[in-house]
Amino acid sequence: MSERAAVLHGARDLRVEQVEPEPLRPGAVRVAVRATGLCGSDLHYYADGRNGSNVLRSPTVLGHEASGVVVELGEGVDAGLLGASVAVEPARPCRRCPTCAAGRYNLCPSGRCFGSPPVHGTIRGTLVVDAELVHRVPAGTDPAVAALVEPLAVACWAVRRAGVVSGASVLVTGAGPIGQLAVAAARAAGAARIVLTDVDRRRLDLAAGAGADEVLDTGTVHPEPGAFDQQLECSGAPEAVRLDALVPGAVVALVGIPANRPAAPDLLAAAQRWEIDVRGCFRYGPGAFAAAAALLRSGRADLERMVTARFPLAEADRALRTALTERDHLKIAVLAEETP
Amino acid sequence: MSERAAVLHGARDLRVEQVEPEPLRPGAVRVAVRATGLCGSDLHYYADGRNGSNVLRSPTVLGHEASGVVVELGEGVDAGLLGASVAVEPARPCRRCPTCAAGRYNLCPSGRCFGSPPVHGTIRGTLVVDAELVHRVPAGTDPAVAALVEPLAVACWAVRRAGVVSGASVLVTGAGPIGQLAVAAARAAGAARIVLTDVDRRRLDLAAGAGADEVLDTGTVHPEPGAFDQQLECSGAPEAVRLDALVPGAVVALVGIPANRPAAPDLLAAAQRWEIDVRGCFRYGPGAFAAAAALLRSGRADLERMVTARFPLAEADRALRTALTERDHLKIAVLAEETP
Amino acid sequence: MSERAAVLHGARDLRVEQVEPEPLRPGAVRVAVRATGLCGSDLHYYADGRNGSNVLRSPTVLGHEASGVVVELGEGVDAGLLGASVAVEPARPCRRCPTCAAGRYNLCPSGRCFGSPPVHGTIRGTLVVDAELVHRVPAGTDPAVAALVEPLAVACWAVRRAGVVSGASVLVTGAGPIGQLAVAAARAAGAARIVLTDVDRRRLDLAAGAGADEVLDTGTVHPEPGAFDQQLECSGAPEAVRLDALVPGAVVALVGIPANRPAAPDLLAAAQRWEIDVRGCFRYGPGAFAAAAALLRSGRADLERMVTARFPLAEADRALRTALTERDHLKIAVLAEETP
Amino acid sequence: MSERAAVLHGARDLRVEQVEPEPLRPGAVRVAVRATGLCGSDLHYYADGRNGSNVLRSPTVLGHEASGVVVELGEGVDAGLLGASVAVEPARPCRRCPTCAAGRYNLCPSGRCFGSPPVHGTIRGTLVVDAELVHRVPAGTDPAVAALVEPLAVACWAVRRAGVVSGASVLVTGAGPIGQLAVAAARAAGAARIVLTDVDRRRLDLAAGAGADEVLDTGTVHPEPGAFDQQLECSGAPEAVRLDALVPGAVVALVGIPANRPAAPDLLAAAQRWEIDVRGCFRYGPGAFAAAAALLRSGRADLERMVTARFPLAEADRALRTALTERDHLKIAVLAEETP
Repeated sequence: MSERAAVLHGARDLRVEQVEPEPLRPGAVRVAVRATGLCGSDLHYYADGRNGSNVLRSPTVLGHEASGVVVELGEGVDAGLLGASVAVEPARPCRRCPTCAAGRYNLCPSGRCFGSPPVHGTIRGTLVVDAELVHRVPAGTDPAVAALVEPLAVACWAVRRAGVVSGASVLVTGAGPIGQLAVAAARAAGAARIVLTDVDRRRLDLAAGAGADEVLDTGTVHPEPGAFDQQLECSGAPEAVRLDALVPGAVVALVGIPANRPAAPDLLAAAQRWEIDVRGCFRYGPGAFAAAAALLRSGRADLERMVTARFPLAEADRALRTALTERDHLKIAVLAEETP
Repeated sequence: MSERAAVLHGARDLRVEQVEPEPLRPGAVRVAVRATGLCGSDLHYYADGRNGSNVLRSPTVLGHEASGVVVELGEGVDAGLLGASVAVEPARPCRRCPTCAAGRYNLCPSGRCFGSPPVHGTIRGTLVVDAELVHRVPAGTDPAVAALVEPLAVACWAVRRAGVVSGASVLVTGAGPIGQLAVAAARAAGAARIVLTDVDRRRLDLAAGAGADEVLDTGTVHPEPGAFDQQLECSGAPEAVRLDALVPGAVVALVGIPANRPAAPDLLAAAQRWEIDVRGCFRYGPGAFAAAAALLRSGRADLERMVTARFPLAEADRALRTALTERDHLKIAVLAEETP
Repeated sequence: MSERAAVLHGARDLRVEQVEPEPLRPGAVRVAVRATGLCGSDLHYYADGRNGSNVLRSPTVLGHEASGVVVELGEGVDAGLLGASVAVEPARPCRRCPTCAAGRYNLCPSGRCFGSPPVHGTIRGTLVVDAELVHRVPAGTDPAVAALVEPLAVACWAVRRAGVVSGASVLVTGAGPIGQLAVAAARAAGAARIVLTDVDRRRLDLAAGAGADEVLDTGTVHPEPGAFDQQLECSGAPEAVRLDALVPGAVVALVGIPANRPAAPDLLAAAQRWEIDVRGCFRYGPGAFAAAAALLRSGRADLERMVTARFPLAEADRALRTALTERDHLKIAVLAEETP
Repeated sequence: MSERAAVLHGARDLRVEQVEPEPLRPGAVRVAVRATGLCGSDLHYYADGRNGSNVLRSPTVLGHEASGVVVELGEGVDAGLLGASVAVEPARPCRRCPTCAAGRYNLCPSGRCFGSPPVHGTIRGTLVVDAELVHRVPAGTDPAVAALVEPLAVACWAVRRAGVVSGASVLVTGAGPIGQLAVAAARAAGAARIVLTDVDRRRLDLAAGAGADEVLDTGTVHPEPGAFDQQLECSGAPEAVRLDALVPGAVVALVGIPANRPAAPDLLAAAQRWEIDVRGCFRYGPGAFAAAAALLRSGRADLERMVTARFPLAEADRALRTALTERDHLKIAVLAEETP
């Protein structure tokens, strides 16, 4: 009854081996995993054995962007969920602390997230997930696309935090997967004009189909000043927060994980003078994962183009090495051993 | 140098006659009117010589949903506006009172609106409009469609006031022109599911192409309970505010002008128990008219189908009589004498 | 090891009898009850065996406004809580549903509240309460005053929902205990002017010390029009929602439980025309109970005057009969058998 | 008919000389100035002939924190204003641009402010001010105290932007006049706990009476981590933005003008991880000046202690030199030639 999993034992030491399934608990479901998308934090753990301040200290299953099928129900779960195709919201808050009570569960100091050591991740046979944290996708959805609901939820949350409304003019900085999904999420929220920028010519080429009205290489040209109501900062580069491009009273949503470099001297001064709101975004708060699943179901976002490679679980190590070395990929998925 | 206008002299006494053009003023532009759409308040003035508490006391040009072309610039106006095709935001606030200062200029107690007696309206040759109150539409836009930006702005504002975000489930009650445009505006803001209801079978038939996911005859069937995040109430019928259809903490935007009937006994009780917000909507606040113009430009709303009849200015009286008697129309437009 | 409790067996059939203490559970504490304040819903159960749609079907301990001392800690609770004097937040949400996840736990459809049959209440020896739901008050606080934190939290939440900010002009309708506490809560939030109204001369007399700038008998005189930024409606009388007293764009918080009478014909029309927000308030959402406890600790609200009678647990029936028949009381408290 | 004024001709070249009164205009009033408080920007102009990017290019009357008496009414102004004691809101927006229309008039790109060259300031005999921009204070208020309404409005606005509500725990960094007034404004808004910090021992001594619950020298000790709901940053030192002191989801209001130094490397990272909102504050938006005037009228803020020196207009130069060289002052006022 054991299952296979991609277990990280140390930097660049990923082994596919047998693990025991997690025991089911009341209020939770068992999901047979179909696909896991790889993202930057997975690569950090794989390459360095750490991600920021979180260090791998014991062998841990990697992965957190998962889709699958509900195969078993814990006590008290609605029977209708059995057999459903789902995307998995990977972070589980404590639900009791003041932060959770206030509806900001994504900031729960004692929350646990799949694939953040020591919590095991999703590149394995099955997962045990609270019923509230699985989100339906249409049966038959490509599992690798269904797994994109997770990063799409990041984008949808940023759009909400930024207050993008119908008619808005939006600047998206950073043309990687999150930036491209941010374009889709902003468009879905009614943005009338979206400019996507990066300083990496290759990423800009990959972003051509993302749906922005304009794609700019900010290594050579700057966005026009005073033109944007919101900035969705998805690059992690502090210098990408360009307050001069924004209207007075605009909002900057920080989605990318800021690099450990000092912010420009005039950043705070400009924020103060023009009442810019700089709002941090971490994962996704209430409603955002459901909104992302709804956006997938609507068919209004072209997500298929984002999946540029697929590997079977047995080749998880090759999947991670590829993600690390070949920069031309948008999203690489690790598929289940055998997708029924 | 005089121009022709449709002047209401009393109930059902509309005369097309020569009037003097308004003098241009600094900061304003002259717009050659191309089209004016007719709406409910125009019909009230025409039929009864009054609309609610506002009574026609002297001959007044009718109309307020206008589009046209900028033909003359007042002092201080940007030269680039000359020749622009525009939709006209008809209400002009005082800009000085605390209500205006707080950004709620649509509620300005001393605001003036085209076509609200004694302020002359838009069914005439030219208008003088503050430059901030004309909104560009693409050159070549059907003038009757361009005039729809005004009611579309009503819908966009309701969507903002209601807080519709991407992924929302929205109930629109009332399938007339505003209700149908509310469907378009909610969709543009990312609503994942929209149910449109009415009790008038004919209006429901006319609403078939409005883009709702479902159209319900609430004379015979009720929307499912606890299913909607927001209600956009566009019917004006107090009994249409059905709090049982909403989730806890939902928002009801009152867009339709409520009929002078008492609200149901349990309306306030339900609002109190489930913390429903009931939010009034009057015209359009900051940004909504611009958002509506942007939505027209985006091509994402099918507005052409809304214009079901066109009359030349010379036949303005027939246009109003038609609007009053033939209920199968969605929007009737009065066109300029001769559209260049 | 059994304890005494005031058990309601039917309308006007309250018996003080021995009951088994609730078993302690992980994450919870045992509170030795010191005082329970009586409120309207207790009186409804006592007088009629029901409150609104909730009917007493089996003997149930009454009461939900409680204070006490933490005497035992469940597994996992911080040791510092032992011995603390606390006010008890009586409603326990499920913490898992979308409503809870969104931070609106007071609207949880499956929440349970002390003293709402069949859930036993607080007029008893000890309570088992989640650790997050006890709120410290200074040691030595009069237990009957500490129990006022509950209705004060109702008032604090209404003030937050209404958006009262420093400098605001506030109308409080209904001069009962909640209305009077709403005056205190609005003052604490910086309201510059507070007018308190009622139609009952006796209640107005009792409200003289509540701290309003003006007390008005609206049976004979109306508040000035267009003068208030917020209305805190604490009377439950639909006709008390007087939109003409408010500024454009104002907010009405519905705190009182609206009587089952139709709302005035022009209520919705006025809300629509002037973009009034009518916001329901139910108990208290995130932070409000803590804010009420902080307000008690600050000493800035004169709460002592609110407690007009005290009865020992053995005389709980007399306490309820007094509350029901003598209208001159503000708040009657049932004290513990023997307060150490 | 000319009047005396303190005219800055260049760095450290302030001359008291005769100037022509401004002509009165419709909608405005003439205010006989009673007092002007000096603030940092006045000192920058005086010391350096510039303040940030704004350079003195022609002789300009200094000052912008003014109080006085209305002595003449322009056309259309309510007669009741004549003779009123007032505080003067010094910035006059265009009222037409999208920023103004959206209710963010303090960010109007073409706004004009008294004492910002080339716009003449308030250290003179009389001012012409839009009627909406004078705010009543009680007759008989000490003019130097009445002039404090301006910096108090800065503090009230910061409190609103930060979302301080009743029960909040607030960190105020920077113990100068604005920081001390921020303590008063936060208290008025119901803050339950306020910690005031600085690195300058002398300023901390001067802040002893400001009303904070605790005063900390952050040169030697840090505020406890995770303890504050809001930070009001009044020091202008980028390193004072200490996100580790805040709860998840907290708000930082930037009130002090940030020094031209890079922000710490981990500032944006912490904001991203914990969804901290960093909100710029510039002067005061809708309602804040009125709230400050109301706070003065309420007597709940001890403002008298803030005025530590007074000079007659004839000694304006000495007033500015004193402000520049003696750091023990909180607020220095320049009084009218003769206060009636």
